[in-house]
Amino acid sequence: MVRAVDVIRKKREGEALSTAEINWMVEGIANGAVADYQWSALLMAIVLKGMNRSETAALTDAMMRSGDIVDLSAIPGPKIDKHSTGGVGDKTSLIIAPIAAAAGVMVPMVSGRGLGHTGGTLDKLESIPGFCVDVTLDRYREILAETGLVLIGQTKEIAPADKFLYALRDATSTVESIPLISASIMSKKLAEGIDGLVLDVKTGSGAFLPDLEDSMLLAETMCDVGHKMGKKIVALITRMDQPLGRAVGNAVEVVESLECLRGQGPDDLMGLSIELAAEMVLLAGLAKSIEEARGACERTIEDGSALERLRRLIAAQGGDPRIVDDPGLLPQPKRTIELKSDRVGRVSKLDSRPIGVATMLLGAGRAKVDSRIDPAVGVILHKKVGDLVDLGESLCTILVNDEAELERASEMIADAYHFSADRVDVPTTIVDRLVAGVD
Amino acid sequence: MVRAVDVIRKKREGEALSTAEINWMVEGIANGAVADYQWSALLMAIVLKGMNRSETAALTDAMMRSGDIVDLSAIPGPKIDKHSTGGVGDKTSLIIAPIAAAAGVMVPMVSGRGLGHTGGTLDKLESIPGFCVDVTLDRYREILAETGLVLIGQTKEIAPADKFLYALRDATSTVESIPLISASIMSKKLAEGIDGLVLDVKTGSGAFLPDLEDSMLLAETMCDVGHKMGKKIVALITRMDQPLGRAVGNAVEVVESLECLRGQGPDDLMGLSIELAAEMVLLAGLAKSIEEARGACERTIEDGSALERLRRLIAAQGGDPRIVDDPGLLPQPKRTIELKSDRVGRVSKLDSRPIGVATMLLGAGRAKVDSRIDPAVGVILHKKVGDLVDLGESLCTILVNDEAELERASEMIADAYHFSADRVDVPTTIVDRLVAGVD
Repeated sequence: MVRAVDVIRKKREGEALSTAEINWMVEGIANGAVADYQWSALLMAIVLKGMNRSETAALTDAMMRSGDIVDLSAIPGPKIDKHSTGGVGDKTSLIIAPIAAAAGVMVPMVSGRGLGHTGGTLDKLESIPGFCVDVTLDRYREILAETGLVLIGQTKEIAPADKFLYALRDATSTVESIPLISASIMSKKLAEGIDGLVLDVKTGSGAFLPDLEDSMLLAETMCDVGHKMGKKIVALITRMDQPLGRAVGNAVEVVESLECLRGQGPDDLMGLSIELAAEMVLLAGLAKSIEEARGACERTIEDGSALERLRRLIAAQGGDPRIVDDPGLLPQPKRTIELKSDRVGRVSKLDSRPIGVATMLLGAGRAKVDSRIDPAVGVILHKKVGDLVDLGESLCTILVNDEAELERASEMIADAYHFSADRVDVPTTIVDRLVAGVD
Repeated sequence: MVRAVDVIRKKREGEALSTAEINWMVEGIANGAVADYQWSALLMAIVLKGMNRSETAALTDAMMRSGDIVDLSAIPGPKIDKHSTGGVGDKTSLIIAPIAAAAGVMVPMVSGRGLGHTGGTLDKLESIPGFCVDVTLDRYREILAETGLVLIGQTKEIAPADKFLYALRDATSTVESIPLISASIMSKKLAEGIDGLVLDVKTGSGAFLPDLEDSMLLAETMCDVGHKMGKKIVALITRMDQPLGRAVGNAVEVVESLECLRGQGPDDLMGLSIELAAEMVLLAGLAKSIEEARGACERTIEDGSALERLRRLIAAQGGDPRIVDDPGLLPQPKRTIELKSDRVGRVSKLDSRPIGVATMLLGAGRAKVDSRIDPAVGVILHKKVGDLVDLGESLCTILVNDEAELERASEMIADAYHFSADRVDVPTTIVDRLVAGVD
């Protein structure tokens, strides 16, 4: 008979847990055999002693099976999702889901909300008047079948063990563990009924795991776990040293996404979005090479079919599709302020994290899980790394409603800018690519 | 402001916690600011990352202050207690409390119950008909003032934080930590209102911490913590490879204690009891040297004053004092069985742990916290390490009521005996002596 104390002791001693032990512990959450204080002791032992790949896969599998596994087999076509580990200004989901769908991929996307300095896809979508991210699993299937894509929040049926463990990790300082992060992400994604998954693992100052080595290890772990569970997985390691694109906030990020879908977005965001969408097309088997997949994705922008998909998605999920042609219908701030440079030089660094924290202070993000989001506020960055700045030139536009934290936020943004008198090399966004499970 | 997650993270990273952080966490148990699942994560981090001496002293102090600190200042004389880390056949409390009291020490003793293979002083005392170990703190002071000694169980007023943490450690495999063990023992002992404490730290196969190195470290830690908290502390490191004395059980250990108080006990038990009692006399300042203290203790046996003290204590705590002269009044087993040797040789080893487990199976101990004790059952060992054994000679007498586990228990006892054809050296019981806080 398995006992919680024995499982905890085993991990405390650094031994690997068996699949039966992991299953028993995860099942114990729902059936009451394991108390929360026992799980938190085990979580701390996992953070400090680690888990090998087999244990991580077993934990992922048990967490996935703690709830419903969505059956999408009645819907024809390859189902591919993308997951990002989160960053500042990362609105790629809003861009690549319509592109990949227009290129023939079925995109069932279950997304998250923002917390701390990072934004969340759901919060951005909810800035569209009427857009509903809380739908039943039946409606989720219907929207996917009708429009080729769907973007919703985590339902209570999907991986409830993850919901329990995530809250416990948050309250017990046991978040920072690559096996636990992997299992949390992959258990939810694999419960969506997908055939394959593209991972965007962020690295650098604004990322959840800033060290490249940790980011690589997380990517490898998730690829390996997904492969063990019979899915096609590819991971891109991408830089989050400076915000992605120019817009940071909610409505303002929707506007920038629309610009991208018209082929008018900033280079870094356009480049990464096309690459991620192309990986989805490739995983779906709809192209023979990444070059061919890239071409297919670019065509969906040129012919307007990607933008059309987004319009249909917004309508299907109850939102006002007129925002596509008239972004002025999105929530607007009371006031806009230009942050002007007091220096001359090239931007040598633009720290993501303080930009994320500053927009959170303005109301665009959440300090706590239950904080309310102001969809209209945020920042539009006019200057990014490598850009030449003159004295008095605008670095960025700050979009404001509640001015309580405006001064603090402005200072943080100004301090996030670093200047140099020398030449500045702009590093590529994509650092590395890892593949698992592609035949 | 202190937050539980920050304290847990700090310990997870191997940093030392401040006294303010430790106080806040311990106070959080009673005021609800810290959840049990947060404490269990911290406990696991402490087990794996350790605590330095200052942290251990701060934890001990905070746990002690979680309840009442008994004020014994109205009672004249030096108050000295003894604590043993527990073993098999360890009935020294029953012997040394009357000896030390008869020699002039005030002995306020708060003891524990047995669990697993180790016995507990309270269970042994309760085999005396009528003896009550659950008394109020007022009655505790009264009995001490009247008879010079008192032997009770932990009350709910003393170190309630320890009660909470001990139960949590038991359920989360976070028991084995020298700082946590030290804080648990010392917080309770220092709340008793004592001036000094003699520690009997067991080592070897039947001890809680079998490795000598661990036992030494535990002794050093407790001496240091006690010294930091202004108490006089001495620790003896004593062997628990084989049971102490010949009797293992409850009533049967009371009988052997009476024999010791008449000067007729086995050498190992007599020797250790005199030594521990002499350390108490020395700490109390009632002798100038350990030799003088030993002499004072031996005289309390020769003149019958120690036995008289025990008789008065039993009467004061509601027990039948006639058992002192007529041990036949103690609970008797239905059946006694001689375990006979099937070999000829010298006993080279007699494992404490299986003897402890076997007597527990017979009913003398607890498998779980709420198991019921049978006071009459146990074992009387006729042969110990170094003794010559003939074929068919009795190794021990097994005292039985419920025979359900008799066969298994008998086999365990027989297997605990190891024989040799060579000479066998009998190691001394006392391995080392550590002192702290004696001027």
